[in-house]
Amino acid sequence: MAIAHPYLLFLGDAPDPLSAKTADGVARWRRDWCVGQLRLDGCKADLGLADKSLKEAAAEGAKTLIIGVANRGGRFAPSWQETMLKALDLGMDIASGLHNKVSDIKPVAEKASALGRSLFDVRHPTREFDIGTGERRPGKRLLAVGTDCSIGKMFTALALEKEMRARGFKADFRATGQTGILIAGDGVSIDAVVSDFVSGAVEFLAPANDEDHWDVVEGQASLLHPSYAGVTLGLVHGSQPDVMVMCHEPTRPHMRGLPNRKVPDLKDCIAVHEAAARVTNPNAKVIGFSINTAAMDDAAAAKYLKELANRFGMPAVDPVRGGVAPIVDLLG
Amino acid sequence: MAIAHPYLLFLGDAPDPLSAKTADGVARWRRDWCVGQLRLDGCKADLGLADKSLKEAAAEGAKTLIIGVANRGGRFAPSWQETMLKALDLGMDIASGLHNKVSDIKPVAEKASALGRSLFDVRHPTREFDIGTGERRPGKRLLAVGTDCSIGKMFTALALEKEMRARGFKADFRATGQTGILIAGDGVSIDAVVSDFVSGAVEFLAPANDEDHWDVVEGQASLLHPSYAGVTLGLVHGSQPDVMVMCHEPTRPHMRGLPNRKVPDLKDCIAVHEAAARVTNPNAKVIGFSINTAAMDDAAAAKYLKELANRFGMPAVDPVRGGVAPIVDLLG
Repeated sequence: MAIAHPYLLFLGDAPDPLSAKTADGVARWRRDWCVGQLRLDGCKADLGLADKSLKEAAAEGAKTLIIGVANRGGRFAPSWQETMLKALDLGMDIASGLHNKVSDIKPVAEKASALGRSLFDVRHPTREFDIGTGERRPGKRLLAVGTDCSIGKMFTALALEKEMRARGFKADFRATGQTGILIAGDGVSIDAVVSDFVSGAVEFLAPANDEDHWDVVEGQASLLHPSYAGVTLGLVHGSQPDVMVMCHEPTRPHMRGLPNRKVPDLKDCIAVHEAAARVTNPNAKVIGFSINTAAMDDAAAAKYLKELANRFGMPAVDPVRGGVAPIVDLLG
Repeated sequence: MAIAHPYLLFLGDAPDPLSAKTADGVARWRRDWCVGQLRLDGCKADLGLADKSLKEAAAEGAKTLIIGVANRGGRFAPSWQETMLKALDLGMDIASGLHNKVSDIKPVAEKASALGRSLFDVRHPTREFDIGTGERRPGKRLLAVGTDCSIGKMFTALALEKEMRARGFKADFRATGQTGILIAGDGVSIDAVVSDFVSGAVEFLAPANDEDHWDVVEGQASLLHPSYAGVTLGLVHGSQPDVMVMCHEPTRPHMRGLPNRKVPDLKDCIAVHEAAARVTNPNAKVIGFSINTAAMDDAAAAKYLKELANRFGMPAVDPVRGGVAPIVDLLG
C-alpha cells in the first residue's frame, strides 16, 4: 500500500484525548513524518504538534491527511467531509484507520478518483493473499505476543525496532493493525483478512530477506483469548518467529472484553506460544518479557520486573519506563 | 440460510466423477431429499439417482437446484446458465458450492430477483457475526478434528449424527464447509469468515441448546496445518467441544498441499487439540479415532485399528468399513 509521508494528522472534533490514540501513536513513533496536527473547533485532543491549516500543511509538503481519530461509533462525522475534500484539492491522499471506509463517502471517492489521489482504508485489506505454506524462508523474525489484547504488543515491537536500528541492525517493523500500518506506512490489518488466508498474509508481510535482517512483527491478541486466538495462530505460524517477546499487564483484573475470564498464567502462555511457533520454526522461543507497569509506582514496578526476570531467567522490561535494551542484547 | 428441499442435483458436464464430489456427498447423506440428478451432454459423473429433466423435477416438487459440481477453475460454465434460468422459471431456488458466485451471474441474479427466488452461494457467508466470547453455554458438542485437511471430518460427523439419531439421541450435524452446508441445508463456510469473527461464527452455528442435545460439528483442517490452523483454532474455541474425535489417514505421505511436511504424530495432535479446546471447555477430550483406511486391505485395516485402539485405550473405527458405533457407545 505504501502511504506517502509527510503526514498531516487530522484530529477532527475529538471529544477526548483517547479518541485520538491512533494519531497519537503516529505522532509518538513517526514525529519526523508529521508536519503538524489539524484540529476542528471543540477538539479536546492535542498531540503537542504545531497546529496547521490544510494550506500551511500543503505548503510544507504534506502528502497524506491521516484520519487518526475515532468519534463514537467509529464513523466519519459529516463535519469532516469539507476537510477531506479540500485536502484532496490541495494534492494530498487520505489514509484512515476507522472501521467505516473513506472510500464509501461518495463525494470524497469521486473527487479522489477525478484528481488521481489515493484513499487508504487501512483496516480493510485490498489485495488477495496466497494460502500460507509454512515453508522456512531466510531472514530473522521477532514476534511480539501476549497474555491478552491491548497490552503493548505494538509499542513493544516499535521500541524494539528503534533500539535495533540505533545499534545498526537491519530491522523493519511489520504492522498488522491499523495504527501500526499508519506508523509504518504499510502493512496488513490481519484481523480483517478472511480466515483461510491469515498465515499467507503474514508470509507476504514478512517475506524472505537477508540472513541478518530482522522483521519485528506486531502481534495481535493471544493464543489464549477465546475471541481472537485464531487470528493469533495464523500470525504465529505465518511469521515463523525465531524469537518472541511476551507482553503482559500484571494488574489487569480480567481479559479484555471478557469479565469472567482471568488473564492467563505467564508460564502457560509461554508454553502455548512456543509450541505453536515451533510448527513453522522448530527453534522458536520466548526470550523476554515486555511489561506494562503503568498502574504501579516505581518501586513496585522495579520489584515486579526483577522478580519476573529471576523467576524465568530472562529479561523483563517495561519499554516505557526503561526501554528494551536488555532484550536487544540477546539478539546479537 | 435454510436451503429448501427436495433438491435436484445438477452435475453439468462434469469431466469425471471427482468433479461432482459435492453432489455426491449430498446424494450419499440426504438421498431422501433428492428427486434426482440432472446431467448435460458429455457428463461423466453419475450419482446413481434417477435422471430428471427440470420439468420432471419441478413436477415432483423440487425446491432447489443444487450446483454440486466443479469444472476446472471452480467457475460456472456458460452452458449452465440456460439450466439455471429455467430452474428459476419453474419455481426453484439455486444453491451452489462453487467459489464463484451464482449471484454474480447477472441474468441469473436479475431473474431470481424478479421472481422472488433465493440464490445461495454457500461458500460466502452473507450475515455478520458477533465476536466470540468463550462463555460456556448449555448443550453438548462433539467436534471432528484431524491430523490434516481432507481426511474425513465431515464424513465422520455425518456418520456420528446418523448413528446418534438412530439411537434416539437429540443430535444435529453443524456444517462448516460448503458440502456440509448443502447436506445440512444450513451452516457457515467458516474458512471464508473474516478471521476476527471465526469463533463468534461457531458460537452462532452451535448455540445454547437442551442439556441432552448434541451438536455434531464438522471440523476443518488441523491445528498443526500451517496453512489453515487459525481457522481450526477459532472452530475449536467457538465450539467448546465436550468431546472430539480425531480423524486420520495412516498412509498419507505428507500433509495436504505441503509436500515437505509429514502428517503429524497422533499423540502430539491429540495433545494440541485437547489443550486448545480446554481454553473454552476444561473437560474437553479426544475420545476416539476415525480412520480412513481406504488405501489398506481388510486385514491391514483391521490390524491397524486394533493396534491403535490398544495403544491409546480408546475406540478406533473406520466409519466406511464398520460404522461409528463404538464411539457413540461412549456418549451415553
